[in-house]
Amino acid sequence: MKINKEDTVNRLLEHDNILIISHMSPDGDTLGSAYALYHALIAKNKTVRVDCSDVVSDRFSYLQKDYVDSSFQPDYIVAVDVAATQLIGSKLSCYIDQIDLCIDHHPSNDLYAKETYLVVTAAATCEIIYDVIVAMNVPLTTQMATCIYTGLATDTGCFCFSNTTSNTHYIAAELYKFPAPFEQINAILFNTKSKSRLLIEQQVLNTIEYFYGDRVAIICITQKMVEESHAEESELDGVSNIPRSIEGVEIGITLREKVDGNFKVSVRTTAKADASQICKIFHGGGHKRAAGCLIEADYHTAKRLLVEAIKPLLED
Amino acid sequence: MKINKEDTVNRLLEHDNILIISHMSPDGDTLGSAYALYHALIAKNKTVRVDCSDVVSDRFSYLQKDYVDSSFQPDYIVAVDVAATQLIGSKLSCYIDQIDLCIDHHPSNDLYAKETYLVVTAAATCEIIYDVIVAMNVPLTTQMATCIYTGLATDTGCFCFSNTTSNTHYIAAELYKFPAPFEQINAILFNTKSKSRLLIEQQVLNTIEYFYGDRVAIICITQKMVEESHAEESELDGVSNIPRSIEGVEIGITLREKVDGNFKVSVRTTAKADASQICKIFHGGGHKRAAGCLIEADYHTAKRLLVEAIKPLLED
Repeated sequence: MKINKEDTVNRLLEHDNILIISHMSPDGDTLGSAYALYHALIAKNKTVRVDCSDVVSDRFSYLQKDYVDSSFQPDYIVAVDVAATQLIGSKLSCYIDQIDLCIDHHPSNDLYAKETYLVVTAAATCEIIYDVIVAMNVPLTTQMATCIYTGLATDTGCFCFSNTTSNTHYIAAELYKFPAPFEQINAILFNTKSKSRLLIEQQVLNTIEYFYGDRVAIICITQKMVEESHAEESELDGVSNIPRSIEGVEIGITLREKVDGNFKVSVRTTAKADASQICKIFHGGGHKRAAGCLIEADYHTAKRLLVEAIKPLLED
Repeated sequence: MKINKEDTVNRLLEHDNILIISHMSPDGDTLGSAYALYHALIAKNKTVRVDCSDVVSDRFSYLQKDYVDSSFQPDYIVAVDVAATQLIGSKLSCYIDQIDLCIDHHPSNDLYAKETYLVVTAAATCEIIYDVIVAMNVPLTTQMATCIYTGLATDTGCFCFSNTTSNTHYIAAELYKFPAPFEQINAILFNTKSKSRLLIEQQVLNTIEYFYGDRVAIICITQKMVEESHAEESELDGVSNIPRSIEGVEIGITLREKVDGNFKVSVRTTAKADASQICKIFHGGGHKRAAGCLIEADYHTAKRLLVEAIKPLLED
């Protein structure tokens, strides 16, 4: 059942031993939401614990607080930024049917919790948490500002993505009134790359080929590159945006080798081309600016097929 | 002479034929400031022209408006975001001694104009222009929001740099109330790289070497790379930040080959090391996190000298 902000605040204030759950593979928004709410509920003299099925990455060590003692027995369980129960993860799977409240911004949230405060216009769950904290009459602190900012910045790509709104910037303006380490947070979130990510980028850049007067760029990620770089799947995030990010390129294509030697194709386009139209030729699909398909062929054949298929779309 | 916001507004409103000058090698802040002010003064029924000594890059074509006819004779000349007369450039050098008003945020501004409205706490000159437009009682428009946002985003690296303040975000929140193409502006400013920049990055990444358990990373930019990639000097901006941006790296070093074959060294450090201490060994200097020096030696010798010099600084 969906509830509103006032009910959310009342539920939180009615309970004294609150467990806050972040989603597995925790990111800055689920952790920032959990710890901001943690600090706010501590300020209201609650006993609170934050938990997550997965280990939190070292880069978020500035957010983490010690857990309360292991004898802690929650009387109220809150999931933050967790869109579906399968994202709770195995360690905390015992709580799957016991989530009392979910606070989330994902339109796909399937309302698995007993009650859900869902605000799909929020760029980040931390935006909702900010409003909840203000509505609880808890004065904001630097610690809370640090947590909430982490979520806002994570989910908006530092205010760059299209989900950013006036309200996102308004909340950031309020947070900046506190001496939180914004510069360091931005450096950790946006200016740091793992060695294996950099290695993958290096290898991928070596494969760039341009076609049709640089209007099309193609890169390749092979199984060998992924193995040799020891890159995790998450470290490949955004690599397929590289070719389209080149000035003048209208169609950027990434060919990702699968274990069976065939190729998963990601097509990214600017306003001048339709990615889904290209992928449809190979029985794939997607959106206008981002689409995908599968080509069962070796690299050179797959590339040739794509380049030939694109040709008529460029004849303007 | 320094003047305040009210005087700035009065001067602008007292004149009817206003020339607004951007600095040479124009960036998003000087252009955004000029065109935002242009639109505001047009709304006040002034005749206005924006000019710049250099050609404006295509990426800023969404900001540019047609000039007024060539018979235009200004009775008031305003320089925006221009910290010193030598930044006016040759085409407009005839105006060097005739700048009536300068609106700027650079602490180094030498007050060359007859009157200067200087706000050094502003992250961008566009922040000041926003305040001036509000004080002029001109209702903001989508065009003005587009211009002002471009300046804010440019000078703060999309709200990432340490100059970002609560006021920067507050203004952004106000601008986001208009349907300006924020997502496209961010894509142009932050997610687009020239082909030659990408080529330089590719070649530079191929030179990365790690030392002392990956605590030190060194890259090299040779004359040959710059020539072959046809990269402009401005396209090398930020390349020297690459080694320090690698997770775990405390000292990132860039060796840039000079025409005479010697090496210009840029050292970037995290909080764990002092860049100026390293550069001082080679008679260079700078700040704690960013410093530079010159080493008169071939690449392998220069690298060896640096690696040896760093060793005692890492022994903790």
